[in-house]
Amino acid sequence: MYAQKYIDLDDLRFILEETLDISPIISNEKYQDYDIENINMMLDAFKEFADRELFPCATEMDSEPVYFKDGQIYVHPKIEGINKGLAELGWFGAMFDYDKNGIQMPMIVYRTIDLIMNAANNSAPGYALLTGGAAKLITSFGNEELNEKYAQKMISGEWMGSMCLTEPQAGSSLSDITTSAKDNGDGSYNIDGQKIFISGGDMQFTDNIVHLTLARIEGAPAGTRGISLFVVPKNRITADGSLEPNDVQSIAEFEKVGQQGFATVHLGFGGKDNCKGWLVGEPGKGLNYMFQMMNGARIGTGVMGAAICSASYQASLQYANERNQGRKLNKSGAKDATTEQISIMNHADVRRMLLLQRAITEGSFALILECSRFFDLEHLSEGEAKEDAELLMELLTPIVKTYPAEQGQMSVSNGLQVLGGYGFTMDFPLQQYYRDIRIMSLYEGTTGIQSQDLLGRKMTMNKGKALKLFNGIVAKDIEAANQFEDLKPHAATLGKSLETLQKVLGHLFPNAAKGDFETFLADANYMMELFSNIVIGWQWLKMGTAAKKALESGSTKRSQEFYEGKLLTMRYFYKYEMPRIDSCATTLMDTDMLTIKTGDKELIL
Amino acid sequence: MYAQKYIDLDDLRFILEETLDISPIISNEKYQDYDIENINMMLDAFKEFADRELFPCATEMDSEPVYFKDGQIYVHPKIEGINKGLAELGWFGAMFDYDKNGIQMPMIVYRTIDLIMNAANNSAPGYALLTGGAAKLITSFGNEELNEKYAQKMISGEWMGSMCLTEPQAGSSLSDITTSAKDNGDGSYNIDGQKIFISGGDMQFTDNIVHLTLARIEGAPAGTRGISLFVVPKNRITADGSLEPNDVQSIAEFEKVGQQGFATVHLGFGGKDNCKGWLVGEPGKGLNYMFQMMNGARIGTGVMGAAICSASYQASLQYANERNQGRKLNKSGAKDATTEQISIMNHADVRRMLLLQRAITEGSFALILECSRFFDLEHLSEGEAKEDAELLMELLTPIVKTYPAEQGQMSVSNGLQVLGGYGFTMDFPLQQYYRDIRIMSLYEGTTGIQSQDLLGRKMTMNKGKALKLFNGIVAKDIEAANQFEDLKPHAATLGKSLETLQKVLGHLFPNAAKGDFETFLADANYMMELFSNIVIGWQWLKMGTAAKKALESGSTKRSQEFYEGKLLTMRYFYKYEMPRIDSCATTLMDTDMLTIKTGDKELIL
Repeated sequence: MYAQKYIDLDDLRFILEETLDISPIISNEKYQDYDIENINMMLDAFKEFADRELFPCATEMDSEPVYFKDGQIYVHPKIEGINKGLAELGWFGAMFDYDKNGIQMPMIVYRTIDLIMNAANNSAPGYALLTGGAAKLITSFGNEELNEKYAQKMISGEWMGSMCLTEPQAGSSLSDITTSAKDNGDGSYNIDGQKIFISGGDMQFTDNIVHLTLARIEGAPAGTRGISLFVVPKNRITADGSLEPNDVQSIAEFEKVGQQGFATVHLGFGGKDNCKGWLVGEPGKGLNYMFQMMNGARIGTGVMGAAICSASYQASLQYANERNQGRKLNKSGAKDATTEQISIMNHADVRRMLLLQRAITEGSFALILECSRFFDLEHLSEGEAKEDAELLMELLTPIVKTYPAEQGQMSVSNGLQVLGGYGFTMDFPLQQYYRDIRIMSLYEGTTGIQSQDLLGRKMTMNKGKALKLFNGIVAKDIEAANQFEDLKPHAATLGKSLETLQKVLGHLFPNAAKGDFETFLADANYMMELFSNIVIGWQWLKMGTAAKKALESGSTKRSQEFYEGKLLTMRYFYKYEMPRIDSCATTLMDTDMLTIKTGDKELIL
Repeated sequence: MYAQKYIDLDDLRFILEETLDISPIISNEKYQDYDIENINMMLDAFKEFADRELFPCATEMDSEPVYFKDGQIYVHPKIEGINKGLAELGWFGAMFDYDKNGIQMPMIVYRTIDLIMNAANNSAPGYALLTGGAAKLITSFGNEELNEKYAQKMISGEWMGSMCLTEPQAGSSLSDITTSAKDNGDGSYNIDGQKIFISGGDMQFTDNIVHLTLARIEGAPAGTRGISLFVVPKNRITADGSLEPNDVQSIAEFEKVGQQGFATVHLGFGGKDNCKGWLVGEPGKGLNYMFQMMNGARIGTGVMGAAICSASYQASLQYANERNQGRKLNKSGAKDATTEQISIMNHADVRRMLLLQRAITEGSFALILECSRFFDLEHLSEGEAKEDAELLMELLTPIVKTYPAEQGQMSVSNGLQVLGGYGFTMDFPLQQYYRDIRIMSLYEGTTGIQSQDLLGRKMTMNKGKALKLFNGIVAKDIEAANQFEDLKPHAATLGKSLETLQKVLGHLFPNAAKGDFETFLADANYMMELFSNIVIGWQWLKMGTAAKKALESGSTKRSQEFYEGKLLTMRYFYKYEMPRIDSCATTLMDTDMLTIKTGDKELIL
C-alpha cells in the first residue's frame, strides 16, 4: 500500500486542548472518569487499533466489495475481527450511560475517535455507528423489555443494528412511507413492506440484526403523523430465548461507486407474512423519534467526509514530499534544464492545493468538535443554558453535514490533482477517496434538503434566536483575536461577513413573511455556501488565536512549526475561501428568480 | 441501459448556424465542398453512427476495461468494428487535405462531430483522434517517404498511432526526457527508453501502431533544444514491404478509475536493443513540432470534457422528468401529504442543478467551436488577419482545455446529485461520468500548467496583443447585445468584468516586469477561473443575442421554447456564475503571498 499516514492526532489534540474549552464537559460529575490525560490515552489506543486493523485493509475493502448471494449479504472477512476488536474496546457502548452498560463517553471524545477510525478506513466503522444509533433509539424511546432483549445485545457488540427509513417512493419525502404494521393484539405487529438504501442492513458475521423501522399502523392518518417506529429483528426471540427467522429478506446489495466495503441493502419485510415487529414508544411518533437521532447521523456523515479529506490530504502530502518535477523560473522567466529537478513541494500551486486541503480538513475537524461540544453542553445543562446549546447545535448541524461533503469533494479532488496522472490510477488511494466522498452530500438528507433546513428552519426558529446566539459568540471570538495585531485583518473580515449575512437575510426574510416560501428558499444552497464559509472562517480565527497565544506564551506543548502551520492555513482560508461569501451574497440578492417554475410550462430544457 | 439521450444536435446547430459566423470558412475555396446543408447531413450521419455503434456499448466498455496479458494490450472487442466504421466514414482522414487522401474537413465541423461521438462514448473515439494527431505530425514535419510508408496507412484507418511524450521522471517537465536515439548511419536510429501514460498505445486490432516519440539523439544538448521527434513503429517495414517486430514492448496497462475503455499504456523501446526509429524533420525540433500539435490535443481534451457534461446532463434531465418526489410548500410553509407527489422538475433546486449543467455544457460547446473557428480562420488567412486569428486561438486554448474539465467536474457532480442516492449506484451512468471526467484536468498539461500558460504566456505575448484583440471582439458583441433591452444588464455585467480583469492585471504585471515570476504566477489558477467566467459569459451573451434575434424576427428555424431555453440558461450563468469573477479578483489582489516558499523552511504541513 502506498500511503503511510491518514490523520495527524496533534491536529485533533490542538482543538481539544487549546482551541475549544471542554472543561465544562469533563469537569461535570457525569464525566468524572474523563480527563485530558485519559482522553489522550483513549485516542492513542484507538489510533493504534486503526493503524493495525483498519488502515491496512482499506484498499482491499474497496477492491473486494460487499456482495449478495443466495439471500445473504457478505461483507469483507476482516469486518468480523474489526467488530470484535471494537466491542472489546467498548466502542459499541460508547454513546451509552453506565446504567445501560455503556462507557458513558462525552460526544466530543466519541467524534474525535470516530474521525480517526474513518480516516483509516471509511467502510468499516459504519457498522458499529449504525448499531449504536439503532440501540440508542430503543434506550431513548422504547420500554425496558426492548432494552433488555435487543439494545443490550447491540451495546455489547454481539448483534448489529440498522435504521430503515427510505422506500422506493419515499426518499427525501419520508411522509410517503407505505410499509405497514398490523396489530396482532399480543404486543406484536405484522410488518409488510420494502426498504432500500439500508446501510449495514445485513452481514454474515452476526447472529441477529435489529432493524429500527418506520412503518404505518393500519388506519393511521396520512403524512408524518401516521408513522410509527418498530423494532424488527432479522431473527426473533422465542419463549425459551433461542432465535427463529423473522422473514426479513435481503433482496439485493446496491452496487455503488464508492464506500464499497459498506453494505447498502434492499430489505423486504414480511413478503411471506411472517415478519413481526414491536412498537417503540407511542404510535405516530416514529418520525419524531427518528429526527431526534438524525442530528447524530448528520454529524456522523460530516465526520466521514472530514475523515476522507484527512486521508486524502496525508496521501497527497506524502507524494508531494517524495516527487521531484520541474524547476523554479529564473529572473528572466526561464528554467535551467541542466540543474536537478526540485521537489514539487516548492511549487506555489502545489502548496496551494495542499493548504486548500488543510483548510477544509482541519476547519471541518474544528467545527465537528465545536458542534459536539454544544451537544454535550445541552445534555449537561438546564434551563436557558440548555436551550442555547441546543439551538447552536441545531444551527450548526446542517453545516457539519454539508461542508465536509461539498467542499470535501473539492478538497479530495485537489489531493488527487497533486499526484498528476498517477492520482487517476488505481495504484494510489486518491481515486478511492474521490469515489468514497461523493456519497456524503446524499446520505442523511441531500445538500438541497440541508440547505432548506438551514435557511427555512434553523435561521428562523425561535425568531432567529440561534443566529443571534451565534453572532454573540463570534463577536467574542473576534474580540479575542483582536488582541493580536496579526489577526486583526482576519477578525475584521469575519466581522464584515456577519454584516453581509444580515444584509442578505434582510433581503430574503420578507419573502417568507408574505408566505412566498418558494422564492425565500430557491437559492438556499447559496446561503449554505455563504454561511459555511462564515462558520469555518470563525473556526479558523479561533484556531489562529489559539496558535498565536501558544507562540506568544512560548508554549512547548507542540512545536513552533506546528503553530505557524496553523496560522499559515488560517491565512489561506481568509485569502482564498472567504471571498466567496461576497459572490454568494451577490447571487442571493439577485431578484431574477429564474429557477422557479412559472405558469404551466415545463422548464425549457 | 438507462439513459436514452446524450446530446441535443440542435444545441450544436444553433451555434453553427445562428451564433457564430462560419461563412468566411465555408465560402473559402478550400472548403467549397462544405455548406450548411451537407454539414448538417454529416452531423446526422455521425449521430446515427454514434447512436448505433458508440452509445450502446459505453457502459460495457467501463465494466469490461482494457487489460494487459502476456505482453499484449486488449481493448474492448467492439473497438474493432467502431474503428472500421469510422474508417468507412472517412473519419481518420478528416483533418487531412485532399492531397494527403483526407476529406479536408474544416476544424469547426471536425470538433462538432467529435463532441457528438464523445458524448455517446468517451472511451471509443480517442483511438482515431490520436491516430490522426500522430499522422498529422508526419505529414506536417516529416518527409514524403514517412508520409507514404506510415501516415497514409493511418489516414486510411488501417494502422493506429500514438504520441509518446511522458516518461516516469518527465511528466509536466518534458525537458527532462531521457529516451535515447543512436544514429545507425543508414537513416535509422536505435531507440532506447520507457514511455508512460501512452493513450491508445497498443491494441489487438491493428497490424501496426506508429508511435510519434520524443527522444534525445546522443550528444544532444540538455533541455528542450536536445529533443527530437521520431517515428517508431510497433512493426517496421522490411525491404519487401512485409512487417517485422520492432521491439516496442507493451509493459503494462495503467488501471484507471475512469475512461476504462481507453488504453493507457506503459511502453518500453529497445529493451533488447533492436528498436528502430526514423527522424521526423530536423534534429532538436521535436518539442517544437509537438507543441504545434498540442493545441489540437488540448482542444480535444476540452471536447471530451464538454461531451461528458452533455451526456451527464441528458441522463439527469431524463431522471428529473420521470421521478416524482416531494411537494410544494403552501402559504404557511407546510406540505399536504394527502396530495400526490410532484415531479422533481418542479423543485427550484433541481431546476438550478439542471440549468447549471446546461450553462456549463452549452457554454463549453460554444467556446470549443469559437476556438475552432479561429483555428480555421488562421489557416485560411494571410498577414495580420492570420496572426490575429492565431493569437485569439492561442489565448482561448487553455480555457477550452480547462473550463470543461474543472467546471465540468462540478457539472457532472450536480448531474449525479439530481438522482439522489441512485446517482451513486452502478445502475445509472452518472457515476461513470463522474469518474471519466476526472482525468480531463490532468491530460495534456494539468490545470496548473494551463493556468501558468494563460497568465504567464498568452496574456503577455506580443505585448498583450491577444487580450487587446479579445477585448475588441467582446466590445462588439456587447454592442450587439445592447440592441435588446432585456440583454442590457447582462451586457453591462460583461463589460464590467473586463474592467475588473484590467484592474487585476494592472496589479499583477509589475511583478513580472521586475522579474518576480513566482509572485506573478502564484495564483494563476484564480486568473484561469476569473478569465474563464468572462469567456463563457461572453459566449452566453452571444447565444442570448442570437436567441433574442430569432425570437424578435419570428424565426421558425427552431421552436420558441428552444430560444427561450437559451435565454433562461444565459440568465442562469449571469446570476450564478458571473459573481465568481469578483471573488477571484479579491483573491488575486490580496498581497499575502502565503503559498510561496520563503527561506529554507519546508512548508509547515
